[in-house]
Amino acid sequence: MHTFKVWAPIPSKVEVQLGNQKLPMTTGPGGWWEASVPSVAPGADYALLLDGKGPFPDPRSPWQPAGVHGPSRLVDHSAFSWTDAGFQAPQFSSAIIYELHTGTFTPEGTFVAAIEKLNHLLELGVTHIELMPVAAFSGHHGWGYDGVSMFAPHDAYGEPSDLKRLVVACHSRGLAVLLDVVYNHLGPSGNYLAQYGPYFTSRYSTPWGSAVNYDDADSDEVRRFFCDNALMWLREYHFDGLRLDAIHAIFDNSAQPFLEQLAVEVKQLGDRLSRRLALIAESDLNAPRVVLAPDHGGYGLDAQWSDDFHHANHAILTGETNGYYADFGSLAHLAKALRQAFVRDGGYSIHRRCRFGRPPVGVPGDRFVVCLQNHDQIGNRAQGERSSQLMNLGRLKIGAALVLTSPFVPLLFQGEEWGARTPFLYFADHPVPDLAKAVREGRRCEFAAFRWKPEDIPDPCSSESFKRSKLEWSELLLEPHAELLEWHRQLIRLRRAEPELRPGALESVNVRFDEQARWLVLERGHISAACNFGSEPQAAPLSSGPYQSLLASNPSVAIGLSAATLAPDSVIILKN
Amino acid sequence: MHTFKVWAPIPSKVEVQLGNQKLPMTTGPGGWWEASVPSVAPGADYALLLDGKGPFPDPRSPWQPAGVHGPSRLVDHSAFSWTDAGFQAPQFSSAIIYELHTGTFTPEGTFVAAIEKLNHLLELGVTHIELMPVAAFSGHHGWGYDGVSMFAPHDAYGEPSDLKRLVVACHSRGLAVLLDVVYNHLGPSGNYLAQYGPYFTSRYSTPWGSAVNYDDADSDEVRRFFCDNALMWLREYHFDGLRLDAIHAIFDNSAQPFLEQLAVEVKQLGDRLSRRLALIAESDLNAPRVVLAPDHGGYGLDAQWSDDFHHANHAILTGETNGYYADFGSLAHLAKALRQAFVRDGGYSIHRRCRFGRPPVGVPGDRFVVCLQNHDQIGNRAQGERSSQLMNLGRLKIGAALVLTSPFVPLLFQGEEWGARTPFLYFADHPVPDLAKAVREGRRCEFAAFRWKPEDIPDPCSSESFKRSKLEWSELLLEPHAELLEWHRQLIRLRRAEPELRPGALESVNVRFDEQARWLVLERGHISAACNFGSEPQAAPLSSGPYQSLLASNPSVAIGLSAATLAPDSVIILKN
Repeated sequence: MHTFKVWAPIPSKVEVQLGNQKLPMTTGPGGWWEASVPSVAPGADYALLLDGKGPFPDPRSPWQPAGVHGPSRLVDHSAFSWTDAGFQAPQFSSAIIYELHTGTFTPEGTFVAAIEKLNHLLELGVTHIELMPVAAFSGHHGWGYDGVSMFAPHDAYGEPSDLKRLVVACHSRGLAVLLDVVYNHLGPSGNYLAQYGPYFTSRYSTPWGSAVNYDDADSDEVRRFFCDNALMWLREYHFDGLRLDAIHAIFDNSAQPFLEQLAVEVKQLGDRLSRRLALIAESDLNAPRVVLAPDHGGYGLDAQWSDDFHHANHAILTGETNGYYADFGSLAHLAKALRQAFVRDGGYSIHRRCRFGRPPVGVPGDRFVVCLQNHDQIGNRAQGERSSQLMNLGRLKIGAALVLTSPFVPLLFQGEEWGARTPFLYFADHPVPDLAKAVREGRRCEFAAFRWKPEDIPDPCSSESFKRSKLEWSELLLEPHAELLEWHRQLIRLRRAEPELRPGALESVNVRFDEQARWLVLERGHISAACNFGSEPQAAPLSSGPYQSLLASNPSVAIGLSAATLAPDSVIILKN
Repeated sequence: MHTFKVWAPIPSKVEVQLGNQKLPMTTGPGGWWEASVPSVAPGADYALLLDGKGPFPDPRSPWQPAGVHGPSRLVDHSAFSWTDAGFQAPQFSSAIIYELHTGTFTPEGTFVAAIEKLNHLLELGVTHIELMPVAAFSGHHGWGYDGVSMFAPHDAYGEPSDLKRLVVACHSRGLAVLLDVVYNHLGPSGNYLAQYGPYFTSRYSTPWGSAVNYDDADSDEVRRFFCDNALMWLREYHFDGLRLDAIHAIFDNSAQPFLEQLAVEVKQLGDRLSRRLALIAESDLNAPRVVLAPDHGGYGLDAQWSDDFHHANHAILTGETNGYYADFGSLAHLAKALRQAFVRDGGYSIHRRCRFGRPPVGVPGDRFVVCLQNHDQIGNRAQGERSSQLMNLGRLKIGAALVLTSPFVPLLFQGEEWGARTPFLYFADHPVPDLAKAVREGRRCEFAAFRWKPEDIPDPCSSESFKRSKLEWSELLLEPHAELLEWHRQLIRLRRAEPELRPGALESVNVRFDEQARWLVLERGHISAACNFGSEPQAAPLSSGPYQSLLASNPSVAIGLSAATLAPDSVIILKN
């Protein structure tokens, strides 16, 4: 016996299709339909007919074993044997996050295969892994941001129980697990939601598709859909938190914004389960309201990604100044990023051609997630080059040191720890030829502006782009990969050992630099990171010695009482 | 000698046309063009040519004497002889606002003619007048919300100096003057802004036209345009504040919203000039952020209109339940409106089909402007009926008493004080036939939903609709108009005399009612307003007597120690 339920205020007739059977559903209050069917058990396939049309997958389908256009399959979440009772995620302020893409993290590209790599992560020392979106999307492979079946794990990655196995394997090793979810749009193929109800609005538009209806008529149920989705991943899959993709495209003018509601509901779930749950936003707004408490006008999310930190660090280390790097490039920018994450905090942005951002007054460091690179910063380049393709080993070590001694929550992207030689390309498997063509040409057009020739841009719709992006784990034993991996391990060990390196009040962060001489010193209590970005040895002045060296990227460093003399492209971490 | 300046980043050539002369402008940083022309004095007519096309009016034209499509005329604002030095608007918390529409307030429909009616307003006792929009719009008459030449007073109302004469005449009588401004869209005819620069965005849409670009590329200058517009009215015309039309259609996702910037700039101007300046929003959001301070996530505006107060009062007094009145109709709604202005504060709204609003926690009463009727609530009815066409004299008196003893800032609409028999219809003079047809049919279509026949809906584009809406001042001496006028005078005198009737902390407002017996008592300190909405006499219980009667709408009232016995449809104001 199972009761099928679906919110479908648009059609005037809804039926469940089970095999050859069509069973009528009855409508109740608020546009919900239901049908109780005896003799249906978990594992059964079903679909829905709307006014006789279809069959369509269930919007809340827990499993789409034949892809997003196929039938939905019933899952009994309570049947899984969890063995992680009592697991508690580390405090978010002590988190070190490792972002991974299930399809390219291992040769197999599955949830189960990822388990075998967890010990590597444990040895690396990270505390949280973050899965790029796993909600089912059209085709075999893709980044996951075009998900359409929001409650179902992507079939190419494995079954629902495989994802649970991955989570429990993390928990058994003390690793917390975050999931990337996309609540700002749905993918272009396999999105049947609009036939069920007013999930979308014409009031706003996003660059990727119709905006989700969070503030207009019938938006309560649309919010319910996405809130329930968040709660489902946290409750049924034991995720320890969610990363909310591109919240700047969640348009919502209401007095009680969706994101605030989501934060309240996740907090309530955490309290009820006595579990530490985190909500982290990707936000392209530089707006403190994302993480401020509601009584200060905020949404109350736990943290937000800081693109500015990335851009400031990247522009200094690579010298790149095109596109959005136009607003960065000086040590002053980097120093500001180290002090308050937001470099653009209200002044004019060259890239945006308007004033942008707001000072993050009263926002502590653990409200920001920072990185040297992530899937977007790599994959949105024409050739998907990682930092390790764009800078020398010395600079890679500086970049890693600044991320891992910063007063924020650090994030690494899969393979970064050893400077993987494999790219992370943009790839999408669009079985619909027109869509594939549009994606391919859109990408070529985008990069034409940066003087790329079409033939130099890997075809995102070729499966080669996907395969080339898979990590090559054998690199790990080779130099200079092994050296870089060891550097990351040492930095992470240091960060976890030194309480002064935890995120905290940003007022206590001190950064000094000399734009001409190319040195910068980040001071966090008794610990300093002194960097030389120049091509000449430099003496970076220190505050008050004596200092001991905790970690040096280059052995040729001389520490005096009031200065550290650093080789070109090197960093040293000191304690006084 | 005059220097013409215009922001026009779109064209690659801009010229000033003066008579038959075309003078080239030179481009400087940020898309600004200028041309210094000797031998041009105030009073000169000019226009602009963009890439040889035009002539177009200046976006910041101070005067459009031949209408919005014609040439602009130079105005020397400093030439006006102001005689209001030292005038200070009353504290906004003691304000009683009188909304008027220049075109229909007097038979002549001009700024100068309005001056002759100011003594009537003075005797009535209001403290502020509020002009419906005067920015130039297409055609001769209209409500003013389709303004397109935002810096120029509408030519049919008089010259710029006439408007200054009206303001100075108010100030000389101790009356403050507010102006309604529209920053959410521009009217459909005569809007040439898009040819000058990216004033509009496709990211959002409003019901009335393209959304203004407040948060995308080049929005700094767009914000400058509207901020400068606000400052211009306050500085050059000595307005004491602005009413911002429909801010819910000012879409702005930025970290530092336009409305916050506007509030800061207006505050700075007031500080510099030592003048009390007010910004009041019309907001259809029921969002406290509109009036909360920026450190609580708000825009920092001084006040917002409360539609809910109107709807709750109107629904009880008329029994109407269609359209947006569906969310109102009980004494409980009215009591909530009296306690906190927002009736819909997060619960489900039947009319909007979603949850709506947020409790106005920590917001004091003077942050809300309330009314029994306003231009919209009257004019958006099919036949433009005022409250006096919809309820008996007893109920009109109750409505007025609740507005004028409420803990908010009261607003009256022109003619309300005597229950004018003239309607206030929707009217628009669209010289473009297609536009006129669209407006006419749109309106008929809108009301068809309420079962109105097309022939019963006055044609908004007929000049009859405009003429019928003009006040008939001779009514004032007739009954029952004179009686109602006297009732308003008495209520206003009482409100101004009793400090306990000033807006204040909403926690101190007490409202008791009996839904079945149809009585309601509003208690504000030692003053109570006891109402009987029923058709039978009712004893409304009082707290602790003895009470004295301050004002009674009906002489047949018996005041005991613990109850007031009220005739049907009557109200008494008491003091203990």
